[in-house]
Amino acid sequence: MADLHIQINRENGGIAGQIAAELRDAIRGGRLAPGTRLPATRDLAADLQVSRGVVVEAYEQLVAEGFLVSRVGAGTRVTPRTPTAPDPTLPPTPQPAPAPKPRSAPPHNLQPAPPQKPQPALAWDAPPAAAPRDPGAGVAATRRSYYGHRPTSPDLAHFPRQRWLAAVRHVLTTVPSDALDYGDPGGVPELREELAGYLRRVRAADVRPENLVIVGGVAQGLSLVVHVLSRERELRLAVEDPTSLGQVPLLRRAGARLVPVPVDEEGLDVRRLTGGAALVTPAHQFPTGVVLSPSRRAALVEWAHAGDRFVLEDDYDAEFRFDRDPVGCLQGLAPDRVVLSGSVSKALAPGLRLGWVAAPPELAEAVRRARGELDLGSPVVDQYALAHFLRTGGYDRHLRRMRREYRRRRDALVAALSEELPQVRVKGIEAGLHVYLELPDGWTEQEVVRAARELGLSAEAVGPMREFAGPPAVVVGFARLPAHQAAEVAHGLKVRMSGQKIDRGGHLA
Amino acid sequence: MADLHIQINRENGGIAGQIAAELRDAIRGGRLAPGTRLPATRDLAADLQVSRGVVVEAYEQLVAEGFLVSRVGAGTRVTPRTPTAPDPTLPPTPQPAPAPKPRSAPPHNLQPAPPQKPQPALAWDAPPAAAPRDPGAGVAATRRSYYGHRPTSPDLAHFPRQRWLAAVRHVLTTVPSDALDYGDPGGVPELREELAGYLRRVRAADVRPENLVIVGGVAQGLSLVVHVLSRERELRLAVEDPTSLGQVPLLRRAGARLVPVPVDEEGLDVRRLTGGAALVTPAHQFPTGVVLSPSRRAALVEWAHAGDRFVLEDDYDAEFRFDRDPVGCLQGLAPDRVVLSGSVSKALAPGLRLGWVAAPPELAEAVRRARGELDLGSPVVDQYALAHFLRTGGYDRHLRRMRREYRRRRDALVAALSEELPQVRVKGIEAGLHVYLELPDGWTEQEVVRAARELGLSAEAVGPMREFAGPPAVVVGFARLPAHQAAEVAHGLKVRMSGQKIDRGGHLA
Repeated sequence: MADLHIQINRENGGIAGQIAAELRDAIRGGRLAPGTRLPATRDLAADLQVSRGVVVEAYEQLVAEGFLVSRVGAGTRVTPRTPTAPDPTLPPTPQPAPAPKPRSAPPHNLQPAPPQKPQPALAWDAPPAAAPRDPGAGVAATRRSYYGHRPTSPDLAHFPRQRWLAAVRHVLTTVPSDALDYGDPGGVPELREELAGYLRRVRAADVRPENLVIVGGVAQGLSLVVHVLSRERELRLAVEDPTSLGQVPLLRRAGARLVPVPVDEEGLDVRRLTGGAALVTPAHQFPTGVVLSPSRRAALVEWAHAGDRFVLEDDYDAEFRFDRDPVGCLQGLAPDRVVLSGSVSKALAPGLRLGWVAAPPELAEAVRRARGELDLGSPVVDQYALAHFLRTGGYDRHLRRMRREYRRRRDALVAALSEELPQVRVKGIEAGLHVYLELPDGWTEQEVVRAARELGLSAEAVGPMREFAGPPAVVVGFARLPAHQAAEVAHGLKVRMSGQKIDRGGHLA
Repeated sequence: MADLHIQINRENGGIAGQIAAELRDAIRGGRLAPGTRLPATRDLAADLQVSRGVVVEAYEQLVAEGFLVSRVGAGTRVTPRTPTAPDPTLPPTPQPAPAPKPRSAPPHNLQPAPPQKPQPALAWDAPPAAAPRDPGAGVAATRRSYYGHRPTSPDLAHFPRQRWLAAVRHVLTTVPSDALDYGDPGGVPELREELAGYLRRVRAADVRPENLVIVGGVAQGLSLVVHVLSRERELRLAVEDPTSLGQVPLLRRAGARLVPVPVDEEGLDVRRLTGGAALVTPAHQFPTGVVLSPSRRAALVEWAHAGDRFVLEDDYDAEFRFDRDPVGCLQGLAPDRVVLSGSVSKALAPGLRLGWVAAPPELAEAVRRARGELDLGSPVVDQYALAHFLRTGGYDRHLRRMRREYRRRRDALVAALSEELPQVRVKGIEAGLHVYLELPDGWTEQEVVRAARELGLSAEAVGPMREFAGPPAVVVGFARLPAHQAAEVAHGLKVRMSGQKIDRGGHLA
């Protein structure tokens, strides 16, 4: 049993979080070696003079993040680094992925990459084709567009305009002139310092300023990382299936050959992983909303270590976890193999185009260099402004406020859907700004998307995001749906999907 | 002789500029056909009731821009589109470029691209090498760095902080929430509208908002254009020699194979052009400061038309032309073959990372699409702020103020150099923020660069920027050198270069 030295500052709020952080540090630092058995929750609670529930919460958090494994009758242990005996909590031996089910794929679908063949011509290189006769083509075309509202967009009516302006004013009245010159393409040092602290604290990341490259959002972060990784040899990049379609052309343009790997109820099916790297959304898979399970996290890290592969972690909406602390990022579990990408797009506004990549030192330097040979880095004023906003606590306050508000909206929508449309399975609601709706028999994705959009919701069909077959589903964003309108919207959806005729005013005809 | 309908608004200032603009439009619109003979300046002046000097100035401006050709005894004509007979004002038939002179090239020098061979490994892909024994290596390494002060950087102590803040405040208190969402990757429509007007007015560009893509500076503009042009087939890109070294790795990373073409006293030697596209700095060549001559402009456009080639025009510092109106951009002469790139880096600050690309519609759309598949576009707040700054005249006022100030500084430096160091030939002073110093026998570039830097000047050796041999030279930035310190600095340079010993305080020992 481990000898633990845990210090708690009771005035610092979040005791479970503090215990988890201390344990995490002890595991990372090697003080708690892989396989070490932890004290029973009851004993540790007595030692620390806290309630047992607090310790349970801390252990659960670390199990969710993959630092600990817990089995009935066997207690809680630090996750073994390389299991010597098969561990029943780990998935079985990887098997070759079955060939994707043949289907009439839309031209912009994920293409399974046949090895050794030239990358197929990309649909978006071709001049825009006339709309095919497929009745869903219109919606598909809208979804493909790389701008405009998305189900994952935040409510921009809550953008903290005055506080952001105050941060910009602070910058423009205090930075020296030289700060406005060509800067470090890796980003303003003050921002990297603040962000490293933030990511350690809020995302349990294992990151220092020199691991960070400031980028123009997750899109650019992924572009640069894939570009760097695919320069010397072909990069076969495993991508979650279903996935966000918007990133498909981006990843291919950056040089990756995409390999779809299915997602199930535990997240990416790591047993079926193939390729030289994997792109994942562990905190809240897009679009399904699944949180990657603890055993899958461990298996994914194992896969990365075993083949010196990189895992690209898209941490796009992890700040918004509603019912418990956010699951720490995967990067914190394996900082030498995981590249973390995040941005302020969900927390503040996509229009700021401000994000980060946290990578092992050598890769971070290659990304920074690539940035210096692409566009010389991000604009500096907003970088200093974000550093100020982080330093003065404005960012945390805004996140707390929005988390409360989004939880209200999610609860209202989920309740209303369950009331009006019990036949729809609502999933992926632990975090983020969208819900995943699995549709009952007889409903088509296109009909639901059309109905939802008529009601002013941002909605996308999941079918075109799939290469492997799956049940019909739709993602619906709730960030902009006020709680008091949820019932009306759910009712409107019910009316529309029941086949009743609607007049132009949205009323039953 | 042409029948001209020229309207002059005498209250609108710059009569010569108005006449030039009317003539330019008439030529572009076809009202003045290629080869058409213009009225004698005396006659047109009488018609318009202006002084003859005003008409001469307008004609000279259009000759400089390549719209008109003027020969003694033959009057002034609209430049023939495709000369049917050899025109003595045009350069002779292109000849194959001689092989670059062999020399011990630094590893990051321009590599002449042997056809059909794989692009040589790039020096900057290799891990940073230990400094070679070359005594100039230290300076070369500094110069290679892609950030930090540059001879072309503006004086950022004059950045209009309060007025820029006011523009940001205007944006943050007036734009609708949706403006802060993912935007058009081609840029905010309001900015493209304002910029198109500005570029037409100030740079005589032939551009509409739909030709413009907003980018993160000229570096990103070039990256994207080269990326797009080199996607389908190898792009052999002619680059001026000497050239700005910072862009070499950028152009190669974007996919170009670089072909150096020498620059002489008239600018790029168009007769020696080879390749599928050319990158030029016609308004003020970097580093030599040469303004591309009228006949070369015409020949370059002819070359582009003849082979359906694109000319990439880097308009990096053209706003700062001191002794006459800026020469209109090349793009205005051939908008279907010239891609104009510019930015606010010299006019406002490099740290804003805000620029534009003006391209023919199809190419502009391809660049916009590439941007949407790279990083989803530039941050929006600064785009709106720049639109506001342009619309309210703040940009023009700032430029006028800075043009006066930089002219003062240039005049002071040129006078002081001529007084203290008459053996140095000072060139390229018509425009921009740097001068080009050709060194006398016995002086080495490295010694001058070291001496200049000791005196606080930003300076770069030209030798490493060359593939073809050329006289030793150094570029020196004057934007941050106050006029009243020019004499002291020139004297300091003289003392240092005369071999006299200097003590630590900078005084003769």
